[in-house]
Amino acid sequence: MASERSVPPTISEVAAAAGVGRSTAARTLGGYGYVSPELRERVLAAAEHLGYRTNALARSMSTGVTQTLGVIIADIANPFFGGVVRGISDASRARGFETLVLSTHEDLAEEVAATDVLIDKRVDGIIVASAALDAAAAGHIQQARDRGIPVVLVDRAVTGLALDAVVIDNRDASRDAVARLIAAGHRRIGFVWGPPVEDRPRRRRDLVDVASRNLWTDGERLQGYLDALDDAGMLFDPDLVMVGRKTEENAEAEVARMLGLDVPPTALFCTENDAVTGSLRAMRAAGLRVAADVSLIGFDDSSWAAVMEPPLTMIEQPTLALGTRAAEVLFAAIEGEAAAPRLHTLHTRFVERSSVAAPPVG
Amino acid sequence: MASERSVPPTISEVAAAAGVGRSTAARTLGGYGYVSPELRERVLAAAEHLGYRTNALARSMSTGVTQTLGVIIADIANPFFGGVVRGISDASRARGFETLVLSTHEDLAEEVAATDVLIDKRVDGIIVASAALDAAAAGHIQQARDRGIPVVLVDRAVTGLALDAVVIDNRDASRDAVARLIAAGHRRIGFVWGPPVEDRPRRRRDLVDVASRNLWTDGERLQGYLDALDDAGMLFDPDLVMVGRKTEENAEAEVARMLGLDVPPTALFCTENDAVTGSLRAMRAAGLRVAADVSLIGFDDSSWAAVMEPPLTMIEQPTLALGTRAAEVLFAAIEGEAAAPRLHTLHTRFVERSSVAAPPVG
Repeated sequence: MASERSVPPTISEVAAAAGVGRSTAARTLGGYGYVSPELRERVLAAAEHLGYRTNALARSMSTGVTQTLGVIIADIANPFFGGVVRGISDASRARGFETLVLSTHEDLAEEVAATDVLIDKRVDGIIVASAALDAAAAGHIQQARDRGIPVVLVDRAVTGLALDAVVIDNRDASRDAVARLIAAGHRRIGFVWGPPVEDRPRRRRDLVDVASRNLWTDGERLQGYLDALDDAGMLFDPDLVMVGRKTEENAEAEVARMLGLDVPPTALFCTENDAVTGSLRAMRAAGLRVAADVSLIGFDDSSWAAVMEPPLTMIEQPTLALGTRAAEVLFAAIEGEAAAPRLHTLHTRFVERSSVAAPPVG
Repeated sequence: MASERSVPPTISEVAAAAGVGRSTAARTLGGYGYVSPELRERVLAAAEHLGYRTNALARSMSTGVTQTLGVIIADIANPFFGGVVRGISDASRARGFETLVLSTHEDLAEEVAATDVLIDKRVDGIIVASAALDAAAAGHIQQARDRGIPVVLVDRAVTGLALDAVVIDNRDASRDAVARLIAAGHRRIGFVWGPPVEDRPRRRRDLVDVASRNLWTDGERLQGYLDALDDAGMLFDPDLVMVGRKTEENAEAEVARMLGLDVPPTALFCTENDAVTGSLRAMRAAGLRVAADVSLIGFDDSSWAAVMEPPLTMIEQPTLALGTRAAEVLFAAIEGEAAAPRLHTLHTRFVERSSVAAPPVG
């Protein structure tokens, strides 16, 4: 029977209750060094009685289960991933698992090192928003699986990697958003946050090719943009696609460039929050108003978007649900429920506010 | 000599190069099970030649150093903590340490469990933004220290706990911001994000007492607000302080209440991002404009604040520097450089934009 007090007992208290020295209790509970079976029994009984939290490492040495999930995310400063991790940890906690998070800053080498650490720390499973662009770059993920650690991808699938991936409907959501801009009368629609290349692809197939060799979500969103143009029988104009570094500053510079074209865009589709704020900076610098002069739809919805003037029409991602679903799929694998790996696609929500209007006359 | 290819070798490749079976290589590199000294030598030589990343756990078994820092933050969905973690991991990585992050959602029980996990995973040091209000609630932190794990507090000091804490100048920054509102002519200044209590403290000393028993940063920011009123010889009005749950929705409700007072506030001081957006919602619902009708200054600066109309005057926290400094202080402790624990205070930056004006006439 565990005691009901909320502060956990110290090792010294367990040692006193077991009638052994503190170092004996520490060795037993820490799972290191030698302790005679007799003393070990007494310490463990006292620990249980006092409600001492069993040392996970000691437990893992006897049962092979450490009861921790490892999560590797691309950018801890992005609230999107904050929501995903929250979903994962809520689902994990409900099963008595703790969640260890590592952030890679979109750097594949950091992701490899993070995977190594999680293997070393003997986590029971790994959820990763991978920066790997294809299976050839995902040797570290294969290495974890080789050691019997289940892995689930979140936010991004990795081309050629036969693994469960929990993602949103990036392509459909983008196609739908751009179709709404077209339905409002727009024929010149800028795409903000394109492939991070120096040379602007001039031909559509080059653009698709470049995009497919970059981050999966970005590629999918670009495809949705092109789908909507196709649906409306509109031609793709390479000048309306941002290229270069994926930063707020470069989004501002690229939108400023687009707004300076002979026939500038009358609407913008932004695939990230920083793309939205960068676009708004460029519009302000050019003296243009949201909706009245240039319409805008963006990923992801936030509290800020709702208090802008006018409030911004945004695509909301089910961030918590992405996390909980990824955890559920991982737990099924940890518990040995074999199922063929597949893409689990969750749906975004289109949050209509006031940043879309007909293009200005003239 | 390590090979130069970027994909790390697999265990199978190391095994082949060493001329041993895969399981022998796995046991050697994983640091578990028996391997003869001779084969072990061969595996380690092959691993080094191929650039196989030494297994940290195996390393820790021989050296006692796992080369990982543990970080416990209050809310992973708050970009402020994202910046802090980024600073910590940049500083750690420069020393060859990996960073494991756990998020507690401001829940002390989760913080205790997280500390337990980090002890179990044998991290070399812990940085924590603690939800503990005083030393009596920080038994888990003491437990980590009892086991020889250095701990550094970040963002929040814990009353009565003699530990290094890396924080910002919450009280001075708040005093300065409110003084600027007073200098602009405001005499009725609302404080948004007050103590999370149901009953509104009517007397100043009750408010201070309640605040001091709540989150350290919140208490410090309230003290700064009161300091500025004192400096100007202004009386504190309990009706101008938000109470209740610390959510965007409650901030909106409390500001709506303040704006409905017989003598409403002409300015608001907001201590969190969600307090800012909640305030803006209430102002919009009341048909009031930022600056022209109600002035506003808030914590923390963000890309969104700069693209609002008008752009918001905000206090910017040195989030990266908080993280790097906390890591530096922790590394000094890990390396045994004894120094008396103290408060390390970093300075905020006042970012002046256009949300402060003189109060409307009449």
